[in-house]
Amino acid sequence: MSVDKLRVIPLGGLGEIGKNMMALEYGDDILLIDAGLMFPEEEMLGIDLVIPDTSYLLDKKDRICGLVITHGHEDHIGALPYILPSFSVPVYSTPLTHGLISVKLKEHRLLAQSQLNVVQIGDTIHLGVFSVEFLPVNHSIPDATALAIRTPVGVVIHSGDFKLDHTPVDGRPTSFARLAQLGAEGVLLLLSDSTYAEMAGYTPSEKVVGDFLERIMSEAPGRVIVATFASLISRVQQVIDAAVKYNRKVMVTGRSMIANVEIARDLGYLKIPQGTLVGLKDLESLRPDRVTIVATGTQGEPTSSLVRMANGDHPQIQIVPKDTVILSATPIPGNEALVNRTIDNLFRLGASVYYSKISDVHVHGHGSQEELKMMISLTRPRYFVPIHGEFRHLTLHAHLAHDVGVPPERTFVMEDGDVLELDFETGRIVDKIPYSNVYVDGLGVGDIGQVVLRDRQALSRDGIVVIIVTADKRTGKIVGRPDLISRGFVDARESDALIEKAKDVIVEALSGSGEGLGEAGFVSSQIKDIAGRFLHKQTHRRPMILPVVVMV
Amino acid sequence: MSVDKLRVIPLGGLGEIGKNMMALEYGDDILLIDAGLMFPEEEMLGIDLVIPDTSYLLDKKDRICGLVITHGHEDHIGALPYILPSFSVPVYSTPLTHGLISVKLKEHRLLAQSQLNVVQIGDTIHLGVFSVEFLPVNHSIPDATALAIRTPVGVVIHSGDFKLDHTPVDGRPTSFARLAQLGAEGVLLLLSDSTYAEMAGYTPSEKVVGDFLERIMSEAPGRVIVATFASLISRVQQVIDAAVKYNRKVMVTGRSMIANVEIARDLGYLKIPQGTLVGLKDLESLRPDRVTIVATGTQGEPTSSLVRMANGDHPQIQIVPKDTVILSATPIPGNEALVNRTIDNLFRLGASVYYSKISDVHVHGHGSQEELKMMISLTRPRYFVPIHGEFRHLTLHAHLAHDVGVPPERTFVMEDGDVLELDFETGRIVDKIPYSNVYVDGLGVGDIGQVVLRDRQALSRDGIVVIIVTADKRTGKIVGRPDLISRGFVDARESDALIEKAKDVIVEALSGSGEGLGEAGFVSSQIKDIAGRFLHKQTHRRPMILPVVVMV
Repeated sequence: MSVDKLRVIPLGGLGEIGKNMMALEYGDDILLIDAGLMFPEEEMLGIDLVIPDTSYLLDKKDRICGLVITHGHEDHIGALPYILPSFSVPVYSTPLTHGLISVKLKEHRLLAQSQLNVVQIGDTIHLGVFSVEFLPVNHSIPDATALAIRTPVGVVIHSGDFKLDHTPVDGRPTSFARLAQLGAEGVLLLLSDSTYAEMAGYTPSEKVVGDFLERIMSEAPGRVIVATFASLISRVQQVIDAAVKYNRKVMVTGRSMIANVEIARDLGYLKIPQGTLVGLKDLESLRPDRVTIVATGTQGEPTSSLVRMANGDHPQIQIVPKDTVILSATPIPGNEALVNRTIDNLFRLGASVYYSKISDVHVHGHGSQEELKMMISLTRPRYFVPIHGEFRHLTLHAHLAHDVGVPPERTFVMEDGDVLELDFETGRIVDKIPYSNVYVDGLGVGDIGQVVLRDRQALSRDGIVVIIVTADKRTGKIVGRPDLISRGFVDARESDALIEKAKDVIVEALSGSGEGLGEAGFVSSQIKDIAGRFLHKQTHRRPMILPVVVMV
Repeated sequence: MSVDKLRVIPLGGLGEIGKNMMALEYGDDILLIDAGLMFPEEEMLGIDLVIPDTSYLLDKKDRICGLVITHGHEDHIGALPYILPSFSVPVYSTPLTHGLISVKLKEHRLLAQSQLNVVQIGDTIHLGVFSVEFLPVNHSIPDATALAIRTPVGVVIHSGDFKLDHTPVDGRPTSFARLAQLGAEGVLLLLSDSTYAEMAGYTPSEKVVGDFLERIMSEAPGRVIVATFASLISRVQQVIDAAVKYNRKVMVTGRSMIANVEIARDLGYLKIPQGTLVGLKDLESLRPDRVTIVATGTQGEPTSSLVRMANGDHPQIQIVPKDTVILSATPIPGNEALVNRTIDNLFRLGASVYYSKISDVHVHGHGSQEELKMMISLTRPRYFVPIHGEFRHLTLHAHLAHDVGVPPERTFVMEDGDVLELDFETGRIVDKIPYSNVYVDGLGVGDIGQVVLRDRQALSRDGIVVIIVTADKRTGKIVGRPDLISRGFVDARESDALIEKAKDVIVEALSGSGEGLGEAGFVSSQIKDIAGRFLHKQTHRRPMILPVVVMV
């Protein structure tokens, strides 16, 4: 390692490189950016969460000067409860982000021992050789920041998650002037959000959604139920603004929504006129066209309030034909089927339903291609590294950078664990540290590996057949008939004949020689072979076969 | 049942109502339309296919006059091998559809005993009280048809899958004139494709894709590899046309692609100039910019040729940086992650990759809202039933029908199994026959029910723990220590302590009273409780617990 170069390492994001964590190293100092989580992909059966692999940092704890958080979304703060216990590192974030982190750590009973620090937008903090300036950017949550990080070899700009909205809900646009000023002074490296690098043009302003919400609030004949992400504070503000404008009261439902509204309001990020919020009891006395309900459930989450309404099993709110329901979000990839089912069920109940495929109910929080180019043009970086995206997003983003003048030899498409080493003169990927996503399943963090996942996949496809064979330990001969128990393989009520025949086949094979059974391990693998082959021939399925040999 | 009314019953489509099969009944006569299959939804673990539930028809076999197929896609022909053995019914279809059906039945060794009949577009056939006229419509496969079905109470039009493309690849547009003529004569009922009822405007013409393909063929510096559906014969034609225009030879790869190209060419639906098709050996002698490869794999299917190329394990074709790869299809919902991974891997190998999110590589085969309205306006039906779509599509399509003048009381949003009874004067849903999707898993058709699926889901989440307890049948006391075997629950190498502690807990609980164990069923449920509680407390996971009590 060259001591006079900067090292840049993306440390996680489940395919979205550097989304959940980035590390910058210079000399002995390490700066971490974000500590988020991802939800598992479809084949990661039973996994609850995926968090960054911090094993590279374990023997370097003392060198970590600080952890800086760009904004308060789960994919940037969600891993804190899993990471802070091993790394007692000071955390820096803007007020709303701080509030959301505090709630999370409190839930995990980690708040007291954590070192949380609030930073105002515009502030600069000093962490080892690094100094970090927090710049405002637009995103789908207030108080989102980009970072301008001064290092001994030059300025690094980390875009955070951003878009360039000239009419944002909170009235504070991305700081073009400051980014341009930094660009004029000279930027060594730009790390920039690639999430929407596939999208041509500009991401529409949040205003589009505000206009849509106003139209619905004014026209809807009954209640307006708006579902959105609990973290989408600015969307909640838009719903409240539109509701107030058309004389509707607002009820908030869903545990996480209630918590986030409370904290955002306390911190001044949500402006709610006195008397606007009402409770369930007040609803009964209000005319339906004076009511708005804000709920969770845009991703079809089975226990969310919207999904329970759609299924007709919400304890308090029954959907009626005059209701208007707005799903103000797009489905996260993988959730489409659940979301579609929710929409179908709402239509079945007779509601009018608006969702992203048919209406302007949502704009996303990331810049499209023209905005990405603008960020590069403003900051004029010497080196460019696309982050926050899967490989194709990074590649396309790199092409955009070439288009606006960053030469390919100074553009690096990295993967998690890659180590980029650079100074003004040279930059190259010098190393790849061992990296593998860390799975959280229940209380287990990192204890689930490929073997367990492969077993779950096998079990999910064709189930399991447990075969119990009792043998006499003196004679080595099989005693009685084997027992077969299956789960997830065939319908037990209709498969008696198949199971009995399988027993026959096993008995015959094991008694074949007239000799004893031999060593238990050998017998087990024999049973596995025989039963596996027989059952596959009969059903064309391959259940997991688990032989149990009991010697008595 | 009123003998002088027409009965209309959608019989399957896994949420897409009537997509796979529709039944029309009048008096004693039954006419079936299509016999397709669907691929399982995510939670249908291990299921291979879903086919229509024909149990309603089982005791009415003699009354079925015929099965008419609208076009040759899997969701309209794929269930034939499962249904024909139980219903020896004559099948009618246009030549290409007939060819594709023949291949399929041959594979299943059912061709000889099937009664397949070829019908030319424009022909009318008589089946009991019904007469069926085959009308040309545009879709993403040639020889697609709508049906004009004369019944004693009036004309029923079944749209098939359609769009209105004025510049289709095969040069044969949807028959506006004939539809309008039927509309002028009087249409009782329109059953119309709702797949794209969410899409505003018009579906772009196939020509858009042709233009894109020509541009790439002319500009690409090396090989052009185009992946598409094997059934998308017109897309294959476009690829061949563009390749020929720019002096490229064409190699076809992928089992199903090779088979479909062969049959479409034999039947004259694919026009390939002599000397255009080449084999693998010829490729080596050709300059890369003289080569086009047509492959399967647009859905990220692990064994398809494109995915093997992307993973670098295709036996013959290695992707190199000058290759251009086009995925000429959109991901089917549920396949996004696999498709994205394929694209990422192609980018990793340095190829230029074009896909639906960023380029005009594909147009879909179904009409958008303006086309759906045009179909209704042309046919001016007395009754309207949206089919081929999930509930939200049907609902939106019904709204379109209201907009163009079909009153709500004569529009029926149906679900599979609903029975609509109508004549000119009245129409209403009078009944719902028992209906449940039929799952195919390996050789089993319909033998997998909710119990098996629920078990597979449980197994996929947290795995299974088998607990073997041996007891002395005279004393009723536990002998030795229990055995615990887990799969998909915890990493066995790292969980010794947990497993040993679980054994202790079980032994302690079972030996507690000093008495015998009691009845085996009771002991089993005791073990299940104790172990389940203990393991959940320790891990927050809920593996399936399978107790095995061996009495010796």
